Amino acid sequence: MLKRRKISVIGAGFTGATTAFMLAQRELGDIVLVDIPQLENPTKGKALDMAEAMPVVGSDVHVIGTASYEDTANSDLVIITAGVARKPGMSRDDLVNTNAGIVRSVTEQVVKFSPNTIIIVLSNPVDAMTYVAYKTSGFPKERVIGQAGVLDTARFNTFVAEELSVSVEDVSGFVLGVHGDDMVPLVRYSYVGGIPLEKLLPKSRIDEIVQRTRTGGGEIVNLLGNGSAYYAPAASLTQMAEAILKDKRRVLPAIAYLQGEYGYNDLFLGVPTILGGHGIEKIIEIDLLPEEKEALDKSAQSVRNVIQVVTAAR
Amino acid sequence: MLKRRKISVIGAGFTGATTAFMLAQRELGDIVLVDIPQLENPTKGKALDMAEAMPVVGSDVHVIGTASYEDTANSDLVIITAGVARKPGMSRDDLVNTNAGIVRSVTEQVVKFSPNTIIIVLSNPVDAMTYVAYKTSGFPKERVIGQAGVLDTARFNTFVAEELSVSVEDVSGFVLGVHGDDMVPLVRYSYVGGIPLEKLLPKSRIDEIVQRTRTGGGEIVNLLGNGSAYYAPAASLTQMAEAILKDKRRVLPAIAYLQGEYGYNDLFLGVPTILGGHGIEKIIEIDLLPEEKEALDKSAQSVRNVIQVVTAAR
Amino acid sequence: MLKRRKISVIGAGFTGATTAFMLAQRELGDIVLVDIPQLENPTKGKALDMAEAMPVVGSDVHVIGTASYEDTANSDLVIITAGVARKPGMSRDDLVNTNAGIVRSVTEQVVKFSPNTIIIVLSNPVDAMTYVAYKTSGFPKERVIGQAGVLDTARFNTFVAEELSVSVEDVSGFVLGVHGDDMVPLVRYSYVGGIPLEKLLPKSRIDEIVQRTRTGGGEIVNLLGNGSAYYAPAASLTQMAEAILKDKRRVLPAIAYLQGEYGYNDLFLGVPTILGGHGIEKIIEIDLLPEEKEALDKSAQSVRNVIQVVTAAR
Amino acid sequence: MLKRRKISVIGAGFTGATTAFMLAQRELGDIVLVDIPQLENPTKGKALDMAEAMPVVGSDVHVIGTASYEDTANSDLVIITAGVARKPGMSRDDLVNTNAGIVRSVTEQVVKFSPNTIIIVLSNPVDAMTYVAYKTSGFPKERVIGQAGVLDTARFNTFVAEELSVSVEDVSGFVLGVHGDDMVPLVRYSYVGGIPLEKLLPKSRIDEIVQRTRTGGGEIVNLLGNGSAYYAPAASLTQMAEAILKDKRRVLPAIAYLQGEYGYNDLFLGVPTILGGHGIEKIIEIDLLPEEKEALDKSAQSVRNVIQVVTAAR
Repeated sequence: MLKRRKISVIGAGFTGATTAFMLAQRELGDIVLVDIPQLENPTKGKALDMAEAMPVVGSDVHVIGTASYEDTANSDLVIITAGVARKPGMSRDDLVNTNAGIVRSVTEQVVKFSPNTIIIVLSNPVDAMTYVAYKTSGFPKERVIGQAGVLDTARFNTFVAEELSVSVEDVSGFVLGVHGDDMVPLVRYSYVGGIPLEKLLPKSRIDEIVQRTRTGGGEIVNLLGNGSAYYAPAASLTQMAEAILKDKRRVLPAIAYLQGEYGYNDLFLGVPTILGGHGIEKIIEIDLLPEEKEALDKSAQSVRNVIQVVTAAR
Repeated sequence: MLKRRKISVIGAGFTGATTAFMLAQRELGDIVLVDIPQLENPTKGKALDMAEAMPVVGSDVHVIGTASYEDTANSDLVIITAGVARKPGMSRDDLVNTNAGIVRSVTEQVVKFSPNTIIIVLSNPVDAMTYVAYKTSGFPKERVIGQAGVLDTARFNTFVAEELSVSVEDVSGFVLGVHGDDMVPLVRYSYVGGIPLEKLLPKSRIDEIVQRTRTGGGEIVNLLGNGSAYYAPAASLTQMAEAILKDKRRVLPAIAYLQGEYGYNDLFLGVPTILGGHGIEKIIEIDLLPEEKEALDKSAQSVRNVIQVVTAAR
Repeated sequence: MLKRRKISVIGAGFTGATTAFMLAQRELGDIVLVDIPQLENPTKGKALDMAEAMPVVGSDVHVIGTASYEDTANSDLVIITAGVARKPGMSRDDLVNTNAGIVRSVTEQVVKFSPNTIIIVLSNPVDAMTYVAYKTSGFPKERVIGQAGVLDTARFNTFVAEELSVSVEDVSGFVLGVHGDDMVPLVRYSYVGGIPLEKLLPKSRIDEIVQRTRTGGGEIVNLLGNGSAYYAPAASLTQMAEAILKDKRRVLPAIAYLQGEYGYNDLFLGVPTILGGHGIEKIIEIDLLPEEKEALDKSAQSVRNVIQVVTAAR
Repeated sequence: MLKRRKISVIGAGFTGATTAFMLAQRELGDIVLVDIPQLENPTKGKALDMAEAMPVVGSDVHVIGTASYEDTANSDLVIITAGVARKPGMSRDDLVNTNAGIVRSVTEQVVKFSPNTIIIVLSNPVDAMTYVAYKTSGFPKERVIGQAGVLDTARFNTFVAEELSVSVEDVSGFVLGVHGDDMVPLVRYSYVGGIPLEKLLPKSRIDEIVQRTRTGGGEIVNLLGNGSAYYAPAASLTQMAEAILKDKRRVLPAIAYLQGEYGYNDLFLGVPTILGGHGIEKIIEIDLLPEEKEALDKSAQSVRNVIQVVTAAR
């Protein structure tokens, strides 16, 4: 018998809900949207609202909202977006520990009901939270993946496409390392229609675009005034989910568990991967220039620092 | 030269923003998302976030946020979602008059910069607000359209598909009249795969589904606790927009200006229409049973009452 | 691990190849296109040509051509389009027996390598050939399905949409019984946007459309001069395949094995069904008017006559 | 008023018809399929068959077949696939002159009824036939475009994706010059997920893939035994058409009229371009290595030789 895929999205905030709606529109599988018991009704309300859009969209998937992990049983894919945002007066370490606690508890529940699923993590700070989910789950490394590079690349591509007035389909950027200020954009691996970006834009302009990409999340936060980006993050999660659910074997940047690759061990870091039906099917190692390796080391160190906060607190 | 379509969405709240994102994902045209000057930055932020999703989606449309109507110039289609929600202590008449003022002012700006556009209205209460937009615009009647029946039908279809466990693509409900408690669902014109619904479900169960549809908006409001539905409304607006932008000549319920049809005059009411490149290309008149006509009269009267509030206040 | 679906299309003629290409474009699964050893190279050529279109379409499915049924092993769905066209001097009975032999032999091979698959038959005459596939396969009845009504309905809908100048999405015809001259179109179950067709077109015009639908296959044959329709048949097969592969539970007409339904036994006939992940999940029985039942009896008798030819020849 | 786009496809052979069907499925515009008067009925038959698929696909476009160019009036885009295949005993020059005559006559008719359209040429040999269409049309150079590189690249990408077992979406080849044996694949501008192909495959394997790409058309011809590729060519034409009709400004290889670019004059040759609503919006010049320039010179010379045949015969 042919069954629909089942996808659970943990965290029904803006990103989680938008991701669920994108997945549902693409008819990728039945959706279970999960949030805490105190938010059970709003979660049900969002899910019902999405379900009521399906006849118009022509998509045959069920969308339900719940506070019970039993409803996520036997998910093919679980996307974890849960976590709090930093509040005034909250130290960075407090944030990390609060979210680590959330991700730990979510992962335990997820694993209990879907022991064979694949997990994508978006919770913040994502590199460390993916580490937490991995350690908690006891899953093989290919089945715990963090999202960062797809979004960073999408932003870079948007700015380049706009600058050159060309299709977004033909710009291909490349970002390694941690999400945020310490990301490592590889400009020499960035192209427009296959032509190296460096032949199409002056270095100064590229530098500006790189810098805007680096602070892309902050740019949205500043504009919104209250809250952070969710449309592009949701689209990025949807692309990763589709690569896995359709076993596409896409070559996409993802936060993967490293065991010697790029010279790092026991660390989650953004690297080029092949995403398919098994999760991360391969980590692709590329030669780095000394300054790139140095930047990646810095990236790795910044992840390690956060992980230390998490493990120290246990 | 072949130019992209241009679509302006007025009001960057949940429904407006979700509609803009759905339109952008479907590559239906460049999007201008507009809100008031006080919300200019958040509006820009939402639009930028959407734009940054486009490389992932593979959609070549520009999405901009603005507080200036100049940016909407020469839109092919304008969707008005602007308006306030009822606040505690606000009378219904106050709400109507506040939103009428907003829709009037929005429409003036829209018409000034896009004198040949087509307008779809969603602002609340939608039947009366479509009337306000029509009178303000001076447009021919086929170019001012309200959304209601597509959403009501979508909800009805969702409930029926769930009840019978069949594809949402094969359920076809039919709703006339005003949006809300006085809507007129025509069960005898509702089918599943072409088979009359009355042959597939007992009357008592159909009555429950009709009643749930009638209060479908309230069901979401109650669950959310704070706010109202936006996913299914956005999907409904997107379907109407697509029918017009692609000149599909879809047979869809819409709030149309009546001049004698169904025995009413100078009134906007939900009726079956043909939606295409000219807007409402035709109003389809169907024979009603006496009790249906009576229910529609009640619907019409409830719209007239609200319009009276609006015109009295001028 | 998440695996792609696998679909085998038997018969690489126009309909088979066009179906394979539509399925591949929609990324519904890996495609195995099969034809006889004498046509192995052209079959490989068509499949390779399709595969080379996938990067442009953005669809990650493998398409291979083969003459070996081993390549079809563990298919989720098999579509049988194999068979010869009637040649000059060939009696109808000869045609039936030739194609029955082909379908028998194809089915044996299919079942050997994919004992749990679902089979859709298009080979001509389709009602009898579905019967042959069913008897040969030993499969439960829900897993052997013939295509006829989706195509007949599509033609009817095309003519109505053209006549009324409305969207093809909003016309919903209804056809029962055998494919061809003895089909039973139920005009009273045909609608445009939910409005009964009889209210929108005069009976004489509807009769002409019904008659054109009845002879729709012949109309194409006459125009082509050499060969028969394949675009609309391929689209119809694709729709049925999608309903099954995505477990959509669509309400579609299909040739189903009857055991008492509509008063017939041990017979394949076009009836309304629910198509989902199990194949035919339900046969929907509707009340027929005496003249409709009479027409369906005639349809059933014409199928029985062909089946008799097949069984007599064994 | 919002009107659908109108696309005429000249030549209803396999490539033309498959292109028309792909365009129709994507709802890109109304389709006029044109062939010679002797083939009027088969052309009408194919178009009607396609039209009858539209209700199943849910696409609202008209598809008509005709032998009259009046029906193509005011096309937004015209795709010319007309021409004969080389027959036994026919010299190459005879083939060129026959097809030049066909393309000349087709172009005159096209221009007469659609003086503002954009023309894409596929007729064989395509570089020279695009030249003929250009000279005959009197159009500005940006509105006459030949297809070659999209197909060559698609084949290259297919082979690389298969070799590395990765998504076709992430392979990006690059081909310059004439279609056929003298094409100029730029391996150093070919990537997988942004990583240079040369880092992922040994040179010997890449050379084999380049060679297979070069003879990709012949490989299909040999397998089919009778006829040549049409699925991937149709997909390529569809991609170019979509870039233009949706004003996507895609960076795609196309056969463009050169006036000094790459050191050539009065010549059509495959180069990187930006394709948008104006047709070829820009020719992108990239630095070539000496051996690449030499290969391109050879390519250019082979085009010139064919053009000479055409012009000498006048």
